[in-house]
Amino acid sequence: MPIGELPERVTVYEVGPRDGLQNQAEVIPTDVKVRFVDALSRARLPYIEVTSFVRPGMIPQLADAEQVAEEIERRPEIAYTALVPNSRGMERASRAHLDGIAVFTAASETFSRHNTNAGIAETIERFRPVVAEAQARGIWTRGYVSTAFGCPYEGDISTEAVVNVSKDLLALGVSQLAISDTIGVATPRQVDKVLDALLEEMPVQQLALHFHDTRGTALANVLAGLQRGITIFDASAGGLGGCPYAPGASGNLATEDLLYMLEGLGIETGVSLSDVVEASRLLASATGRVPSSRYFAAATA
Amino acid sequence: MPIGELPERVTVYEVGPRDGLQNQAEVIPTDVKVRFVDALSRARLPYIEVTSFVRPGMIPQLADAEQVAEEIERRPEIAYTALVPNSRGMERASRAHLDGIAVFTAASETFSRHNTNAGIAETIERFRPVVAEAQARGIWTRGYVSTAFGCPYEGDISTEAVVNVSKDLLALGVSQLAISDTIGVATPRQVDKVLDALLEEMPVQQLALHFHDTRGTALANVLAGLQRGITIFDASAGGLGGCPYAPGASGNLATEDLLYMLEGLGIETGVSLSDVVEASRLLASATGRVPSSRYFAAATA
Repeated sequence: MPIGELPERVTVYEVGPRDGLQNQAEVIPTDVKVRFVDALSRARLPYIEVTSFVRPGMIPQLADAEQVAEEIERRPEIAYTALVPNSRGMERASRAHLDGIAVFTAASETFSRHNTNAGIAETIERFRPVVAEAQARGIWTRGYVSTAFGCPYEGDISTEAVVNVSKDLLALGVSQLAISDTIGVATPRQVDKVLDALLEEMPVQQLALHFHDTRGTALANVLAGLQRGITIFDASAGGLGGCPYAPGASGNLATEDLLYMLEGLGIETGVSLSDVVEASRLLASATGRVPSSRYFAAATA
Repeated sequence: MPIGELPERVTVYEVGPRDGLQNQAEVIPTDVKVRFVDALSRARLPYIEVTSFVRPGMIPQLADAEQVAEEIERRPEIAYTALVPNSRGMERASRAHLDGIAVFTAASETFSRHNTNAGIAETIERFRPVVAEAQARGIWTRGYVSTAFGCPYEGDISTEAVVNVSKDLLALGVSQLAISDTIGVATPRQVDKVLDALLEEMPVQQLALHFHDTRGTALANVLAGLQRGITIFDASAGGLGGCPYAPGASGNLATEDLLYMLEGLGIETGVSLSDVVEASRLLASATGRVPSSRYFAAATA
């Protein structure tokens, strides 16, 4: 069969400063983070998840959440977002004038307990006042469904589990769901199958796909998503971010690789690929870590 | 649109010992090459391109072609093949008892001249006696169409140019064509478009796809090929092989990454993924080079 019709325009949701940096062992100085986010803004990424308002002291990398949010140069056309784990985090994000917040649960009960010390149902209840408060303040909301394609503890995850937690998050009122392959195990037929089930329950406009390139399948999974009409994809500049369950392996899908493929497919994003390369280069030279993005390697060779 | 029907079975054509090693700067000792090919045989790869019979002295890495062919342990169910540039190479391949030979031309006139010192038409004429001789001796034949998706000199390549050289190679009598993205620039819509044109002129069974993962799109391109019914894909263990036009960038699609995706799609190959990882590990420990395969990194983390 030919590829068929694909969306004309895609929204790239940049997670590098949060999902990417969160997985770095060494703490990055605040001014480097700020310069990195500013470089991503110059690339005109429409959404940038800049930090996470977890309890201060819990993740040293994120202890400077307020400072990062304060010091970055905001552009009115870009939505700056942050992860919040609870009402306290929501309050901090609101005081820091973020445009959007993201809450975080899982399709795997075991992963949820390991990662947030609470079962899936409990996390949903915890987020009920968070999402309500965000809505009251006019703050945009997103919900992550992690381990949607596989779990480091449970292995396979049923499509039913993904659909159930997705419906629960939408019932809270979140604007967008990020269906996430946390450990990078997904393959295209699986993506197609999960989307088939989700699209029976919700409009395509509310669904984002979040892939990790741990086994090289991220862009093939994106293609399967595009063929189902998905128009929102997460990515991380340079492929920043590891996998805590496979140290040394690649992490998030690289923004550069995603943009290169989308450009080749004639799909508009409004993002400057060369400016994303510059943002990755800036971070790489500050941290000494070589980006895992294939495109970055080819472009800077 | 859903992904639709995909082939049930795929043939993986391993090019690591030839296309991969050919691009390595340092010369690999013959005994390492032999152990590498033997490890690939253990993985039950059905086709292994083991060397290239170019003029001795032209590429130091390939000066031991006869010795490699002599010392590897052959398995009757595996086809051991080699690249041959001319009748002299064909004779050497035949004396070395190879099961198949591959000839090599391009869809780009400029690339052909740079790479083989002859225009496309001239290379076709040069291969006429080579293919005839192979057929007379019962040796299987393949023809590479390089730069089918882009050229380092000419840039874009017309679909018509790809179709023309493909038809010329088939007219010589080659059994299989390897439509090759030599510099790793292809994206899925382009693959779909080129295949659409080729499939009007030839049966799907004669077409193999050869991708480089230089910009991360190789597996997405494979998916586009599978959707068109292609059942033969080239890959290189560990992602071995660089790109001479972008030193430091990734090279061939890694066999491990291809196999991981195919397994996830429920497509049979008969190849042992874990044994390919062992072959890559063997070569990596002998050469000190870290494989670029994403799957390899995750599996050995």
